[in-house]
Amino acid sequence: MKIVILGGDGFCGWPAALHLSARGHDVVVVDDFSRRAIDDQLGTASLTPICGLDERRAAWSEVTGRRIDAVELDLAEDYEAFLDLLLTERPDAVVHFAEQRAAPYSMRSPATKRYTVDNNVNATHHVLCAVVESGLDVHVVHLGTMGVYGYGSAGMRIPEGYLDVQVPGPDGGVPQQILYPSNPGSLYHMTKVLDQTMFAFYAKNDRLRITDLHQGIVWGTGTPETALDERLVNRFDYDGDYGTVLNRFLVQAAVGHPLTVHGTGGQTRAFIHIQDTVRCVELALLHPPSAGDRVRIFNQMTETHRVRDLARLVARLTGAEVATVPNPRQESAENDLHVDNSAFLDLGLRPTTLSEGLLLEIEQTAVRWAHRVDPDRIPATSVWNTRRRPGIPARPVRPAAVGA
Amino acid sequence: MKIVILGGDGFCGWPAALHLSARGHDVVVVDDFSRRAIDDQLGTASLTPICGLDERRAAWSEVTGRRIDAVELDLAEDYEAFLDLLLTERPDAVVHFAEQRAAPYSMRSPATKRYTVDNNVNATHHVLCAVVESGLDVHVVHLGTMGVYGYGSAGMRIPEGYLDVQVPGPDGGVPQQILYPSNPGSLYHMTKVLDQTMFAFYAKNDRLRITDLHQGIVWGTGTPETALDERLVNRFDYDGDYGTVLNRFLVQAAVGHPLTVHGTGGQTRAFIHIQDTVRCVELALLHPPSAGDRVRIFNQMTETHRVRDLARLVARLTGAEVATVPNPRQESAENDLHVDNSAFLDLGLRPTTLSEGLLLEIEQTAVRWAHRVDPDRIPATSVWNTRRRPGIPARPVRPAAVGA
Repeated sequence: MKIVILGGDGFCGWPAALHLSARGHDVVVVDDFSRRAIDDQLGTASLTPICGLDERRAAWSEVTGRRIDAVELDLAEDYEAFLDLLLTERPDAVVHFAEQRAAPYSMRSPATKRYTVDNNVNATHHVLCAVVESGLDVHVVHLGTMGVYGYGSAGMRIPEGYLDVQVPGPDGGVPQQILYPSNPGSLYHMTKVLDQTMFAFYAKNDRLRITDLHQGIVWGTGTPETALDERLVNRFDYDGDYGTVLNRFLVQAAVGHPLTVHGTGGQTRAFIHIQDTVRCVELALLHPPSAGDRVRIFNQMTETHRVRDLARLVARLTGAEVATVPNPRQESAENDLHVDNSAFLDLGLRPTTLSEGLLLEIEQTAVRWAHRVDPDRIPATSVWNTRRRPGIPARPVRPAAVGA
Repeated sequence: MKIVILGGDGFCGWPAALHLSARGHDVVVVDDFSRRAIDDQLGTASLTPICGLDERRAAWSEVTGRRIDAVELDLAEDYEAFLDLLLTERPDAVVHFAEQRAAPYSMRSPATKRYTVDNNVNATHHVLCAVVESGLDVHVVHLGTMGVYGYGSAGMRIPEGYLDVQVPGPDGGVPQQILYPSNPGSLYHMTKVLDQTMFAFYAKNDRLRITDLHQGIVWGTGTPETALDERLVNRFDYDGDYGTVLNRFLVQAAVGHPLTVHGTGGQTRAFIHIQDTVRCVELALLHPPSAGDRVRIFNQMTETHRVRDLARLVARLTGAEVATVPNPRQESAENDLHVDNSAFLDLGLRPTTLSEGLLLEIEQTAVRWAHRVDPDRIPATSVWNTRRRPGIPARPVRPAAVGA
């Protein structure tokens, strides 16, 4: 199958490109390198020494004999170039990773708020509008987020996108199946709610075939393909904006910094290993909806953990201490999370669990590249609103103590 | 109260500015004149001979001694200028009409689809982001649409924004109150769904005070203020993109054209007179939510009618014939619509009904300015998707017959 991967130079996009190329698909990567530009803007860098896209592609050809094409293109700005690309390449599917994907960055400043909304909405809308204008039958696979869901703490199990409810009315009301009510926790998450509204419209109005992957927090760095050659290494973010909670714990442990837990650490989050992410993307590509179907939504996660339990797990494996800092986010201090993820399991996904993969990740990534850590970049400095601003220390509340 | 009116040169914005100025409020109009530019683009014009904004404002001062200030500004493009305006004017409220508001125009071409989404999303997000950045306590009043609602045909009464549902779960499920599930009928309507998602986020995260007016189709042209002087006249659109169904019937009748009903005419729509629109806006301004409240949603409509019944009513008053043309929209041929609109009635709104106001509208607007009609502009030529394209005639199916 011919697949265009939007954002194919990024953390999920690059290993997805390799995974799909390795399985014989014809892959074209599209990227505007905005993620690398944001690293420059923030003074941050991937812990792993990632190569430029051309060097990555050359290495892939050298090692495997397979070819990945690439096009530099700002999807949110240059609609006509993207339409031309569709008409030239005539892909079977487009995988859309081309959005600003850090919640803290989306809340960092008025400029990053506006960039996130403008970029993400226009990128997604351009994909949909161009597929319609092209007249081609292209399956759109989009990376969404578990963060669109709202009532995770209500003691129920979050379904895969659609919720059965009873609506009041005459004769005792009517049953309806609705898109799960959204309650996004950041502007980044909000853009994914805007995306799903656009998907629902285009699936209904234009019979586009669309799959939306509501993904949990991705952990891990490598896949068998990225491990083939050092030049293929994937990015690993540990800074306060782009580093996910687990990555930041691993790096803190590796450099002897206490693990900084926000608030009580009672937030429960969904997780998935990067290896499973790329497998899920391929499974979604192999099982498209039909024209006229509603948007197919998968919950792309394999396990849930409470943040303080993750901290304890990393502490146990590394000897690090755990410290508490004020939570910069506007969110509940504690929440439960129960998620239905049977769709991918039924399609054959065999999850990589945290309990079996975490030690390898510590050794192969965090410890190996610990000499590249800039400790000043670890604290989360983006706050959600002015009420969260006062008293946020740049450093942990408790004094730093010895780690791994 | 000091009020900034975004889109204050437009069909709802201008009479709202006059209404609020007449009641002693301090009004600043902001507009980028995009509505006038779209008229130029489409080769259309208001049936009524509207003056430029400067001439309108000068006439208002001359007639009433009151002053309306004006700033030319593209809200979706020039965030910093809007922020400066807020910091300079320090308004108590911002009324946000500054969106592309025609469903057919939003579906007309890839370019108008992209313009509508980009313009409307960024305009709304800039309002919210700038109010937060300003640090001011500004009440945001937004013109939304009844078209965000989804299940109007399910036999229930649409509540004012929020729906009580029973969600399945342990112990027989839990009651939840959710934002009414959306099911927009065009990209224009979809942008209003995106708006309400942004409003919910900013009300929750930043405690912004926001009122969203879910308005029906506006009919009528004048208010007591626009009637004070011919230079104050409001716009009246009758073209296939911007003309609402009732306006197009009135103009068709006035020029002896059959009234063109789309499909069976079984679509039920909500209506409100422009005079009631501006009253509702003032009522909303006088009854703001408190900081920390959820978004306050009003259903801003006063009656519902089936399109074919409207055609019959206009035919009876004018002697026009009724003709049927294929429906260019992707929508149900027939739908019911029951709407709860008690909030504005409880605040004192006394509706202008179609049965008492329609004849005046015919005489004072449609017949009076009939010599300005360009009949070529009346047919709806924007189609919702390729399946709606074949067989759409530029003219009614039945031959034109004698009208009023």
